[in-house]
Amino acid sequence: MPKLPDTQSEPDKRRVDIQNVGVRALRYPVIIDEVPTIGVFALSVFLPKEARGTHMSRFVALVQKHHHALSSELLLKLTQELAESLESGSAEIELKFPWFIEKAAPVTKTLGHLDYDVTWLAKWDAAEGAKLVQKLTIPVATLCPCSKAISDRGAHNQRGHLTLTVAATEPPKLSELIQLGEAAASCELYSALKRPDEKHVTEQAYDQPAFVEDVVREATVALRKLPGVTGFRVEAENFESIHNHNAFAVVEEGTL
Amino acid sequence: MPKLPDTQSEPDKRRVDIQNVGVRALRYPVIIDEVPTIGVFALSVFLPKEARGTHMSRFVALVQKHHHALSSELLLKLTQELAESLESGSAEIELKFPWFIEKAAPVTKTLGHLDYDVTWLAKWDAAEGAKLVQKLTIPVATLCPCSKAISDRGAHNQRGHLTLTVAATEPPKLSELIQLGEAAASCELYSALKRPDEKHVTEQAYDQPAFVEDVVREATVALRKLPGVTGFRVEAENFESIHNHNAFAVVEEGTL
Amino acid sequence: MPKLPDTQSEPDKRRVDIQNVGVRALRYPVIIDEVPTIGVFALSVFLPKEARGTHMSRFVALVQKHHHALSSELLLKLTQELAESLESGSAEIELKFPWFIEKAAPVTKTLGHLDYDVTWLAKWDAAEGAKLVQKLTIPVATLCPCSKAISDRGAHNQRGHLTLTVAATEPPKLSELIQLGEAAASCELYSALKRPDEKHVTEQAYDQPAFVEDVVREATVALRKLPGVTGFRVEAENFESIHNHNAFAVVEEGTL
Amino acid sequence: MPKLPDTQSEPDKRRVDIQNVGVRALRYPVIIDEVPTIGVFALSVFLPKEARGTHMSRFVALVQKHHHALSSELLLKLTQELAESLESGSAEIELKFPWFIEKAAPVTKTLGHLDYDVTWLAKWDAAEGAKLVQKLTIPVATLCPCSKAISDRGAHNQRGHLTLTVAATEPPKLSELIQLGEAAASCELYSALKRPDEKHVTEQAYDQPAFVEDVVREATVALRKLPGVTGFRVEAENFESIHNHNAFAVVEEGTL
Repeated sequence: MPKLPDTQSEPDKRRVDIQNVGVRALRYPVIIDEVPTIGVFALSVFLPKEARGTHMSRFVALVQKHHHALSSELLLKLTQELAESLESGSAEIELKFPWFIEKAAPVTKTLGHLDYDVTWLAKWDAAEGAKLVQKLTIPVATLCPCSKAISDRGAHNQRGHLTLTVAATEPPKLSELIQLGEAAASCELYSALKRPDEKHVTEQAYDQPAFVEDVVREATVALRKLPGVTGFRVEAENFESIHNHNAFAVVEEGTL
Repeated sequence: MPKLPDTQSEPDKRRVDIQNVGVRALRYPVIIDEVPTIGVFALSVFLPKEARGTHMSRFVALVQKHHHALSSELLLKLTQELAESLESGSAEIELKFPWFIEKAAPVTKTLGHLDYDVTWLAKWDAAEGAKLVQKLTIPVATLCPCSKAISDRGAHNQRGHLTLTVAATEPPKLSELIQLGEAAASCELYSALKRPDEKHVTEQAYDQPAFVEDVVREATVALRKLPGVTGFRVEAENFESIHNHNAFAVVEEGTL
Repeated sequence: MPKLPDTQSEPDKRRVDIQNVGVRALRYPVIIDEVPTIGVFALSVFLPKEARGTHMSRFVALVQKHHHALSSELLLKLTQELAESLESGSAEIELKFPWFIEKAAPVTKTLGHLDYDVTWLAKWDAAEGAKLVQKLTIPVATLCPCSKAISDRGAHNQRGHLTLTVAATEPPKLSELIQLGEAAASCELYSALKRPDEKHVTEQAYDQPAFVEDVVREATVALRKLPGVTGFRVEAENFESIHNHNAFAVVEEGTL
Repeated sequence: MPKLPDTQSEPDKRRVDIQNVGVRALRYPVIIDEVPTIGVFALSVFLPKEARGTHMSRFVALVQKHHHALSSELLLKLTQELAESLESGSAEIELKFPWFIEKAAPVTKTLGHLDYDVTWLAKWDAAEGAKLVQKLTIPVATLCPCSKAISDRGAHNQRGHLTLTVAATEPPKLSELIQLGEAAASCELYSALKRPDEKHVTEQAYDQPAFVEDVVREATVALRKLPGVTGFRVEAENFESIHNHNAFAVVEEGTL
């Protein structure tokens, strides 16, 4: 095989450091903590001003090598491996995947799976080492306290998203964050509900009304108590049933 | 300027008629019935088996020529113009755009705009002439009759989409279809609601519970009475506030 | 437990048959032909005019029961099971999922996974029995024959989607359809390519230019030869590298 | 009218400041610098720990009042007006809208509109006053320098997005940013191209190959020279024609 020119390794004279260069929207089958799911990866490294380009195929090679056995711990190690394989001082790996909890309906105990969107963002640099940020979107129900207080009957309610982004010295389990987040809303969601269950969740939501402001505050109070958390962002968004726009609220504390 | 080869006009030997060839995802500023909005076009013609390719720039030229003054009537004429400019026996133009109604809140009469998604699909062929199908997505609120009947207090409700697809000898006005569709749900939506309005819509939704089945049936009964309608499809989808999945129902009558 | 009212089982006087009623956007972990992936289900039945509503929890129960071992054959059987469990004369199940092929790069044989979007639509009714339609979106590269013919150097090319929708008495394998589709474009895609591979695919695309019209015709000629196919739709869409809109072409033959 | 309870104005004891609370996904017809388009708004204020909720209808009222005559200057003033109307120390307004340039094709001078996505983020707080960040996504063509260097004929190329996020003491015009961004890629895009134009853009892209790394560096060098710019982020993403994933690069300088 004749030697091909290596354009990426040419010197560059524009004196521009690139904070992130790599690939994204790379969809792969993955096994995370022994559970199969589908991941979408973004992987990147720092590219100093002297080098023209990075070597894109090495990002894919890393995913191809490790997709069968991933965990948050391993992802942190892989950021360092990625930086070293591309001779860079820093690297990032973002991995998005759907996660499922099998839950029992509150009264009949009928089983069903509920889906959550998770993003892990792992960063490594030579000076500060490795760091993981977890982001988790929890679908919930919220019932409007104002609507309940002012109306003679009923109260508007809707599906909403509670999104927790958490940095921690020891990453909390997804199931722990899900439980914490679901407790902050008017009621949690289920995929399978029979009539006695539907009665239960309707009345529970009516008895626990919550604005987006209440949802982010309840989640904030709970996150402050989680051991090892160094920073978080809490965002609630309601797909209002009386409007075609959404209400939202955001709290950030500590460092992400 | 030297003569360039015309690859598209070469003969083709594979003996395959192409029902539709053209461009899509073409976003343009448009003025429809004297109202400015943003349109996304898909334009196509029939290509007989003898010809290798169509001339893509002519589709864009048609939009560039007419984007400043469109209507459903003109769109129908343009399908014929498109077919003729490309020497084809049939043509289609699809135009998607957001449409707005300025509404007064039910009690305080506060004004606000509500947005609807509209698709016009205009078809022309030499044998059957021109035909328009209108598709309109109406965001609404629905309150679950089962939840209300079985619960001691409250009832789950949510935002939903009611989508009307209508073929008619004389196309109904968008405002007429919107009114018809909003009447089929538990309550219509508003962008601006003060507390007396919120009390009103909460109680109205509670007093008019509707399953997706009820919504499509109410809209069907109303569409059957619209003069000139030759066929329709009615689809309701609820973004259930107790689940992370949606309920839906579809009725089709006549020919679209 | 006290007896709760059954609102769905009330009679209905509006005289409107509902072609489809059920749930959609139900995301579940699934195992298809022994391969784990993530599915999004839509399930529905026919509801005759006499009945007010269907029982939504039974759709979810079917998915919960079978998600661990699915196949196209089983999906067909489940449509009948679904219709019977809801005492309906017809039922449909749509299942969307990403599918992966592990491929070797053309020269260096480096391994990587490529992702495809698949939709299975299974229908059953009492009169006609069960029927499966497969839809598969194949990402490909296309190089413009016109641009190549008229330019002194280079030719514009781009990523495109080739979507095959196929009805067959015996459903073809996904791998077979993927191979057939990839052969219709200028070049197939890979996730992992080293420089000798990149040279290969660049030159192959340049040597096999194809309009969207060519891509749908090549796929049509190949689908006509597949045993047992009773109808198909072929759609090619190019994310043109010289425009911000897309070119597309559609061929339909037989009955879907 | 009887006095209704004001739930939002109740005191709150959880001691959690909320950085942002308001509405989002509010779609409205807008006129920006005398040009009609469609905007999607997110509006929010800071809510101190003592107050339970904000008054959501006032966000919509602001949009309803001003949607007919907007500009980047006015948006900055409105953030202060919003904060004051809700008695808050800070406010943000985000406005997303499509923007169009009518361009002449490079050889035949055929006219067509090209579309760009713009986001304006205006912030105001009592201590630091008002500040605008502009974000602009420019669709471009990029041709791979490596593919060109190693191949005997052709070179893979594709559509890509160049996104410029710019903070400036005096906001640059959109047309100026568009010109700057389009010059950083292999070739700009057009909606209407005839064959002599297609030859031109094909050869121009072949003569100006650019990695994502090159695109962000060229744009960075140009942004550094723009007067009044205090910080920027430049991001390039290529929808690679040889892969089903994307390449990307990011540069950030100064403060956003």
